[in-house]
Amino acid sequence: MNLILLFDLDFITPTRVRLTGRRHAHIRDILKAEIGQSLTVGQMNGLMGQGVLALKEADAVELELVLNQKPPQALPLTLVLALPRPPMFKRILFSVAMLGVKKIIVLNFSRVEKSLWNSSSLQPSVIQEQLVLGLEQAKDTVMPEVIFKKVFKPFVQDELPSLIKGTMPLVAHPHEPQEPLSFPHALSGNSNQPITLIIGPEGGITEYEFQRLKSIGCHPIDLGPRILRTESVLPYVVGKLF
Amino acid sequence: MNLILLFDLDFITPTRVRLTGRRHAHIRDILKAEIGQSLTVGQMNGLMGQGVLALKEADAVELELVLNQKPPQALPLTLVLALPRPPMFKRILFSVAMLGVKKIIVLNFSRVEKSLWNSSSLQPSVIQEQLVLGLEQAKDTVMPEVIFKKVFKPFVQDELPSLIKGTMPLVAHPHEPQEPLSFPHALSGNSNQPITLIIGPEGGITEYEFQRLKSIGCHPIDLGPRILRTESVLPYVVGKLF
Repeated sequence: MNLILLFDLDFITPTRVRLTGRRHAHIRDILKAEIGQSLTVGQMNGLMGQGVLALKEADAVELELVLNQKPPQALPLTLVLALPRPPMFKRILFSVAMLGVKKIIVLNFSRVEKSLWNSSSLQPSVIQEQLVLGLEQAKDTVMPEVIFKKVFKPFVQDELPSLIKGTMPLVAHPHEPQEPLSFPHALSGNSNQPITLIIGPEGGITEYEFQRLKSIGCHPIDLGPRILRTESVLPYVVGKLF
Repeated sequence: MNLILLFDLDFITPTRVRLTGRRHAHIRDILKAEIGQSLTVGQMNGLMGQGVLALKEADAVELELVLNQKPPQALPLTLVLALPRPPMFKRILFSVAMLGVKKIIVLNFSRVEKSLWNSSSLQPSVIQEQLVLGLEQAKDTVMPEVIFKKVFKPFVQDELPSLIKGTMPLVAHPHEPQEPLSFPHALSGNSNQPITLIIGPEGGITEYEFQRLKSIGCHPIDLGPRILRTESVLPYVVGKLF
């Protein structure tokens, strides 16, 4: 926790918060903060700044706030991701928030096991928990938006075209020896071009799905001969593209 | 498991292996392979190729091998890493093997908790397990070397200078507003320059340690305003540098 994220319910005056539970335990046991000590804080979807420890009780602390810094820039990246298995989905949500992605669309593909859509990891509270942890890790306050799309074809046909407008739409697709693909040349340096990145399931996207995505203008990108685990693809591609 | 890794003990003839346990279960339950089916295999530290399923028994399978492909190129990257906590260390070992890093030196820093050096995750069998899983994920056969250095100063003074010779030595170091640092310009594109990358502990490297590393020629690199978790730093930097 490199930043303590503050929610509306924490505020007892406009410049003072009262924290219990996980954040209180962190301040007491990990930071071992003393009265008067200044801690890095940020208001959910708002400014960041300092919170001075003003009161310590057995089960709560209070901080006096000065919020005057903007959160770091968002990454101009929209992620369209095949629903992964629960432990990986959690780690990806953490990564999304940590890396500064602000919009993630979780999509069905044929090789996504249907039962995954009933997983408890899709509950808003579970999702929110990982996103909060990721923001606290990165020192950011802006909550990413997570959208679920359970049917591939209508989403790709009716919604994806307007979503990718004004962005470079890329689909991570394994190297095919017949048709060597690579990162678009224009993207090999550091760029701030907005990007929509589509990452299929572990088992790969089908030829039908690939052709659908290509037909609306998505460019395949090759991640090289190594098959990376989904949770590593994201920081790898972000490192490469931005 | 995108490749089935074969060990010397598996060979019953020069072109035939007998597999039990985890790999047998994978072939039977996940791949649901039939007699005559061809599976992607690779010999530890050797060639990759195909294994044709020749025999199925209750607790074992046998494959007839054709090994004729080189494993993918190694990444010209040596990693010097502060010892992380066990769950993260495991995920990093997996990533190291998956990304093609072939040498990792695990080093002590002042902000590494001393008790971590007694962790059971430092046992060779635990390390080997994660590296094998990473190679199987990436389709590679070449086992990374993992070296432990429990004392910072003599390592940095006596061994690191010759280790970094002929490479670009980089140390990941948080952004300091007084002295803005960034990725060396020459490295911002895709390069095959060998690199030694030093990643400190979650709590950061001390000023003393930073000055020691700088004094032998290590260049600080800034990973931006966001604080990334160690396990994500590696794919991020690999994406950026290669």
